[in-house]
Amino acid sequence: MTPSINADRLWQSIMDIARIGPTPEGGSCRLALTPEDTQARALFLEWCKPLSLRFAQDAIGNMFLRREGREPTAQAVAFGSHLDTVPTGGRFDGVFGVLAGLEVIRALDEAGIVTRAPLELVNWTNEEGSRFRPAMMGSRVHAADMTLEAALAITDDHGTTVREALQASGQAGALTPSPRGWACWLEAHIEQGPIMEATNTDIGIVVGTMHARYFQLTVTGEPSHVGPTTMDRRRDSLAATAEIILAIERLAHAAEPGGRASATWIENFPNARGNVANITRLHCDVRHEVADRAVAMEAELRATLDAIAARRHVAVTVDPYTTFGPIAFDRALGNTLRDKAQARQLTTRDMIAAAGHDSVLIAPLCPSAMLFVPSIDGITHNPREYSTKEQLARGAEVLLDTVLELAC
Amino acid sequence: MTPSINADRLWQSIMDIARIGPTPEGGSCRLALTPEDTQARALFLEWCKPLSLRFAQDAIGNMFLRREGREPTAQAVAFGSHLDTVPTGGRFDGVFGVLAGLEVIRALDEAGIVTRAPLELVNWTNEEGSRFRPAMMGSRVHAADMTLEAALAITDDHGTTVREALQASGQAGALTPSPRGWACWLEAHIEQGPIMEATNTDIGIVVGTMHARYFQLTVTGEPSHVGPTTMDRRRDSLAATAEIILAIERLAHAAEPGGRASATWIENFPNARGNVANITRLHCDVRHEVADRAVAMEAELRATLDAIAARRHVAVTVDPYTTFGPIAFDRALGNTLRDKAQARQLTTRDMIAAAGHDSVLIAPLCPSAMLFVPSIDGITHNPREYSTKEQLARGAEVLLDTVLELAC
Repeated sequence: MTPSINADRLWQSIMDIARIGPTPEGGSCRLALTPEDTQARALFLEWCKPLSLRFAQDAIGNMFLRREGREPTAQAVAFGSHLDTVPTGGRFDGVFGVLAGLEVIRALDEAGIVTRAPLELVNWTNEEGSRFRPAMMGSRVHAADMTLEAALAITDDHGTTVREALQASGQAGALTPSPRGWACWLEAHIEQGPIMEATNTDIGIVVGTMHARYFQLTVTGEPSHVGPTTMDRRRDSLAATAEIILAIERLAHAAEPGGRASATWIENFPNARGNVANITRLHCDVRHEVADRAVAMEAELRATLDAIAARRHVAVTVDPYTTFGPIAFDRALGNTLRDKAQARQLTTRDMIAAAGHDSVLIAPLCPSAMLFVPSIDGITHNPREYSTKEQLARGAEVLLDTVLELAC
Repeated sequence: MTPSINADRLWQSIMDIARIGPTPEGGSCRLALTPEDTQARALFLEWCKPLSLRFAQDAIGNMFLRREGREPTAQAVAFGSHLDTVPTGGRFDGVFGVLAGLEVIRALDEAGIVTRAPLELVNWTNEEGSRFRPAMMGSRVHAADMTLEAALAITDDHGTTVREALQASGQAGALTPSPRGWACWLEAHIEQGPIMEATNTDIGIVVGTMHARYFQLTVTGEPSHVGPTTMDRRRDSLAATAEIILAIERLAHAAEPGGRASATWIENFPNARGNVANITRLHCDVRHEVADRAVAMEAELRATLDAIAARRHVAVTVDPYTTFGPIAFDRALGNTLRDKAQARQLTTRDMIAAAGHDSVLIAPLCPSAMLFVPSIDGITHNPREYSTKEQLARGAEVLLDTVLELAC
């Protein structure tokens, strides 16, 4: 019997997960290791139970569901993504990759197929990094890009550590995080951009990612009173930060189409209505398809910060806290994805991922690749994020065909 | 015996209060109705106990210390200020006015003087408005500029209501807030600006205040992803707010020397590192010596907001939440202050207060006036806020002489 993707079942599973941590506009909020994330993980595990899967979990909460193959010593073909979301999450980002993988397993079980190589379906912890920075934390620790101890000590904005959140949610597994000797890694994901829709592309073959550099900036001025303090005496950290935000935006416009820059997170002190602010913190990032251009963007940003600091008599410190990429994904694996898509008469396009993904961390460990399905109107990290049932099913079908090719 | 101000005792009292809620740089943080504010109130009351004062407290926590006079039916001469501070508070703002009043009572008690009219020394609740907005809350409710019920329902940034804070701190008094039939009101305060030092002025005669208008702005855009979302598709509420902050700063520069404008408080959502922000709130104010100019500043701000909203495809709503002034203080009372200062060979200067003060709320109820002492380098709302022992003592002496003139 030929295994086949059940588009309705895949869609229904995605909708069932989306109802966990629902937001008023129809999206989901499941920040990493919150009760909502834990509930989604539990539902996912419940779906795995009747399948031919064995569950293991590591100390950073990454979930591995293993399906044995005919050759016990063969390296596994692994695939998956993440179930956590940003606060303004849609229903598809990450979730599609995990549940497309689940649908592949369901299809194989239904067809009674045992592959030669084992398979591993993965849910990575805290891909989004909204609650705990940096992003891609689970895959980062797995790949030893960050130590477990360093990750466990990280706190959210309320002072809760990753260690405490793992314990409270029951997600601290017994395994020591480490590479699992996979033959290869595949991740299906929504595009999160407008290109595929604009070019009538069914399947995006992600050949690499941008190089991104993230910073925390701290602007320190002097507290004073909004009334009597004349403008020449002010060292207003919030106004200086406003200028920085707009400088980052100009940097972003200049870097298009290959680059981006964003300021996203702000904390202001004393944040009191009678006070000119004296300490403001800002998180921002610069990124570009060409790694040197991202480095040049950072240099330009630093020069701008120096100029603003000098002119406004404030101090600006720059703390780089993470980078990712650039990654070139495995060419042969990309070719297989493209071949399988084209064999189903689907249109393809080679693409560069502008967002970070767990695959960026896994790529140095084993041949890795990603496929994209279209995002309607490019909307993402937004309750209106949308891909059609058919678009999602096509992605799962290409994933299934590729897994069969690699594992049989 | 002639009553006289004890400069050392006044200084020591100010230093003793400053040690409650100490900040690393030598300032104080006593937000309204916190344990620190409560502890300062308790120490103040302890100092009042051995004096000829009777304590009463109203339901918004205002403290009234009454010293009876020879004529039981005479209207009281009232004076005081506030003991709460901003988060980056210095040692003198507000505290000087309360403790200069206390020093006047101590001097009268020492000299065995009973005045004709009764005296009332006052500590107003939440003058600063850092924790609960609006500022001058205690005097505002006292003057029926705001109902008690409305004030009690106001919440801080953590959701605690004024009612809860009053109960938790034991500061909910039995009196119904209402005017107390005073003959007049006097407030001694530090200048919080650079003018007196620059002009060698000992005593500032505050003839009036600016007109200030406070707003909460809410900027609403659309959530999206910092990576794949191209600039033309972004509706970034934080970047729009940055532009607004700089527009307010330009408005401020254009309004000098008679006016100011400030943006002080910001809240950003989702404040997540992978997300272009979609909701940002900002608190700001415009103020001017000429009321019409402040109104014109608001109109200019609103036009700028409309332009920014249209260009950036975001929505901006403006919620005015309070105003104060303009107030012209009582001319005859100001003349008395000036006469008493000049009789002591002190230099004087008529001034307009740029900050809000409780006196702004009391001025409509009875003849009111303020005196200023210099602030070194104009620094205020800052641990480095400073006035010398001698400058403070001169202010207390003019207050004493004026109280004697009015109450005898």
